[in-house]
Amino acid sequence: MSTDLAIARAATLQPIADIAARAGIPAEAVEPYGRFKAKLDPARIPDTGRRGALVLVTGINPTAAGEGKTTTTVGLGDALNSLGTRTMICLREPSLGPCFGVKGGATGGGRAQVAPMEEINLHFTGDFHAITSANNLLSAMLDNHLHWGNELGLDPRRITWRRAMDMNDRTLRDVVAGLGGTGNGIPREDGFDITVASEVMAILCLARDLADLQARLGRIIVGHRRDGSAVTAADLKADGAMAALLRDAMSPNLVQTLEGSPALVHGGPFANIAHGCNSVAATTLGLRLADVVVTEAGFGADLGAEKFCDIKCRVAGLSPAACVVVATVRALKLNGGVGRKDLDREDVAALRRGIPNVVRHVENMRRFGLPVVVALNHFTSDTEAEVAAVREALAPLGVETVLCTHWADGAAGAADLARAVSALIEGGTARFAPIYGDELSLEDKIRTVAREIYRASAVSFPPSVSARLRRFEEAGFGRVPVCIAKTQYSFSADPALLGAPTGHVLPVREVRLSAGAGFVVAICGDVMTMPGLPRSPAAERIHLDAEGNIEGLF
Amino acid sequence: MSTDLAIARAATLQPIADIAARAGIPAEAVEPYGRFKAKLDPARIPDTGRRGALVLVTGINPTAAGEGKTTTTVGLGDALNSLGTRTMICLREPSLGPCFGVKGGATGGGRAQVAPMEEINLHFTGDFHAITSANNLLSAMLDNHLHWGNELGLDPRRITWRRAMDMNDRTLRDVVAGLGGTGNGIPREDGFDITVASEVMAILCLARDLADLQARLGRIIVGHRRDGSAVTAADLKADGAMAALLRDAMSPNLVQTLEGSPALVHGGPFANIAHGCNSVAATTLGLRLADVVVTEAGFGADLGAEKFCDIKCRVAGLSPAACVVVATVRALKLNGGVGRKDLDREDVAALRRGIPNVVRHVENMRRFGLPVVVALNHFTSDTEAEVAAVREALAPLGVETVLCTHWADGAAGAADLARAVSALIEGGTARFAPIYGDELSLEDKIRTVAREIYRASAVSFPPSVSARLRRFEEAGFGRVPVCIAKTQYSFSADPALLGAPTGHVLPVREVRLSAGAGFVVAICGDVMTMPGLPRSPAAERIHLDAEGNIEGLF
Repeated sequence: MSTDLAIARAATLQPIADIAARAGIPAEAVEPYGRFKAKLDPARIPDTGRRGALVLVTGINPTAAGEGKTTTTVGLGDALNSLGTRTMICLREPSLGPCFGVKGGATGGGRAQVAPMEEINLHFTGDFHAITSANNLLSAMLDNHLHWGNELGLDPRRITWRRAMDMNDRTLRDVVAGLGGTGNGIPREDGFDITVASEVMAILCLARDLADLQARLGRIIVGHRRDGSAVTAADLKADGAMAALLRDAMSPNLVQTLEGSPALVHGGPFANIAHGCNSVAATTLGLRLADVVVTEAGFGADLGAEKFCDIKCRVAGLSPAACVVVATVRALKLNGGVGRKDLDREDVAALRRGIPNVVRHVENMRRFGLPVVVALNHFTSDTEAEVAAVREALAPLGVETVLCTHWADGAAGAADLARAVSALIEGGTARFAPIYGDELSLEDKIRTVAREIYRASAVSFPPSVSARLRRFEEAGFGRVPVCIAKTQYSFSADPALLGAPTGHVLPVREVRLSAGAGFVVAICGDVMTMPGLPRSPAAERIHLDAEGNIEGLF
Repeated sequence: MSTDLAIARAATLQPIADIAARAGIPAEAVEPYGRFKAKLDPARIPDTGRRGALVLVTGINPTAAGEGKTTTTVGLGDALNSLGTRTMICLREPSLGPCFGVKGGATGGGRAQVAPMEEINLHFTGDFHAITSANNLLSAMLDNHLHWGNELGLDPRRITWRRAMDMNDRTLRDVVAGLGGTGNGIPREDGFDITVASEVMAILCLARDLADLQARLGRIIVGHRRDGSAVTAADLKADGAMAALLRDAMSPNLVQTLEGSPALVHGGPFANIAHGCNSVAATTLGLRLADVVVTEAGFGADLGAEKFCDIKCRVAGLSPAACVVVATVRALKLNGGVGRKDLDREDVAALRRGIPNVVRHVENMRRFGLPVVVALNHFTSDTEAEVAAVREALAPLGVETVLCTHWADGAAGAADLARAVSALIEGGTARFAPIYGDELSLEDKIRTVAREIYRASAVSFPPSVSARLRRFEEAGFGRVPVCIAKTQYSFSADPALLGAPTGHVLPVREVRLSAGAGFVVAICGDVMTMPGLPRSPAAERIHLDAEGNIEGLF
């Protein structure tokens, strides 16, 4: 049994009704799902006018060493609560598919976890299944429309809407469907994305309320006619039934940390082709309930935090008060060129070569007007000299580096971080603004992110991409934000370019309009929207023991 | 708004904890899912030794007029409870897909409904989504196995395991997957069945407990090698992870009727290629909790009740005490050749031509050793002369015909039926036995059902089918029951042959081994395992209103 699982099983969870009551949520707003999960109805929670401070937890570019962003989000929330600050943690829901691929859940670790971990990692409250159903209902209605005569005049070769499944299943990436004769519809090329990559997921996470959800679903573009005009989900009359399928999924989910802090775990879009944050519904609810909301964004700050600021905060009118950049000595050493096998050995020189990565992420977050603290997530192999090297590099920027041991020590291990974050909030220095204005052209929005965040020297737009962006603008989508899909491993589009590269060119290969979510996706490099399973998937080792406990999931 | 929906919305539901408490279920066994649904943990419900009487509700061959089997099951349960008999209702869970096709849910109607109807008809407690996931995890692991070298030597042309989706989507019936190059697996023909047609559904409904579930999942045959030997889910090491996905889905779901009776709504396999009954887990739990359990079987008695007796009762060691055959004057008139438009006009002659259908179903249920009562589900257009004709036809058999008005009157409308059923139970005349013994050959089992239930004069087995059945026997599956898939509209395999045909030949076109479920499927005629949507699907009219209510679902 892994340590994470052993710690989780040893914890005594409190009834979710008690967690809700302590968070100031009236009983009539709580819909229990089992003993330790609940859905919350924001409409039944009185608005006291309270608006908490929003704290974003982001990280350096991810590496194989693991940075512990979710763990730090949980630890910081627990620590703030233990110090008497009424705090809500807002996390993304994990995807089911990856649980069966490479071992590992997405509920934190050590003494900084949300629970119940098996349930959150598997079906949870059914949100992702509802999203899968809504996605595939639209596909079924689309193909049904073709089957019965294609009154809308869709060009079957120009259908862009794909089916979805919450599974790592490479075999479904490219399929031909509709085979077997006239009774089985119109044969055409199609494919499946993993559910977190569905535009329906992005929509659910950006919608203010059910009415906004239904309207956004209607704007989804499923494909085009021969004349280039778009056909939407509303044209297919699919938006209402999709919204009906998603009604309960729109309600934020309440769970608890192992230390009894409340946590809203809701929504989980990809951080490449989508914006990688938990739902607007959960975050805004959290801000109504707590003095501080701690939330995280996917991947490194160049991808996740940029989209958090430029997409989520812009759309929802949120204004963060402070930012935590999570780093580890090990990940910085990897950025400095150390091999994975040598991570346990002190190597201050390599560390110093990797440190520019964290420095740049810190500078970037300041460009959004946010005060920053660096959380150095401690591993036992880190030496004092290494920790000192990180501190020294950040001190000239006036940024504090706080050593955290919440994995081992829970709230106590993040108390210093909590005090530093509280000081930033109380300092009131945040002057948040997205990095570009709505009025910029789509190309200029991409250029701005590339220049200000990625530090690219240029962006290459093939003529076909430029033309397509102009068509989006002509169709009335010029004011939406851009969502750049590139590798998470580098500031650049080249995953091998670690550290803090400059002078690189961002190659925009393809652009897509997510009209329902309300952003334009710019694809730079290969982007995987349906993972595969490894040779020996984790699923092979999962089973139920004699008492019905799930073994081998983590 | 339909009358059913208006009645359902006007009802005040009781907290599910109160329903559970009145049914004798301790609070620690109740896992709430929202306010009005719960999952029950049978292991936390003390066994008092009580074993209630099992009453099966079945029907004549279904027609477009509707017979009201679920409605009668609910009405009878309500009536028994109102007369002081501690009664549990056991129903199947409805499938999500058909909700979007042709208007209509599967939660009863009028004042005889289970609630909350929208939630039960949509995602409910997630059981079907869990089944879909487990089915598709097996597919993903199978294709992953091929991708990484096919160590087990599966013949890709002999793979019989298909993917599943809970959606009416004809376009997915036949697909080619694995396209797009070496990174996307091995191209092969595949297809999707609707979730209720998945063997995983049948397994969940027949498994005694979690250990039995995991063992049955492991026995699923996914395909064969070139030498003809079978490859199972256990060979792919998929059984454990599938069981983990299904752990919570194995717990029966508790809801209530509009009159406050407890109802276990759990599992819902097809009644053609599977056995068409709710779960063994729910039925056996109901029998421990109540003096009477009222349950239903799918389609007409020739399909649903036969499989209830020969598969479910055999496997689970159940012994029903009485049987209700539901009929309507309208459906019998259709069986007698009346057109749908003329159903409102009195036509005793046509009715008399259709009555042999109900007579034969009654005789058949007696062949299983069950005392029978006929429930005549009343429509306002039925005339006294018509009702009298039905009574007169059944009286010589010593079978009572009870007029029921539970749709309009709730429990009071089924009180006479409840008294008749109670009398049958108290009479103690049931001598239940399946229609064939385990020791018969597979061919002889099919012949016995064809002769005794369908009244066919012969069964035709093509040589390839006979050879396949022999191979099943040689592989050790000779003692399992048979599950005959044929049209539900006739005793024969010809849907146009209404009434009570004789002299027909049952053509067995194909046989399949459901080794995990534990039966051999004999396919006679066309069997649809993935429905399509109509030209104007119900989904087009479903939407959320300004208050977030789902409109247009019924």
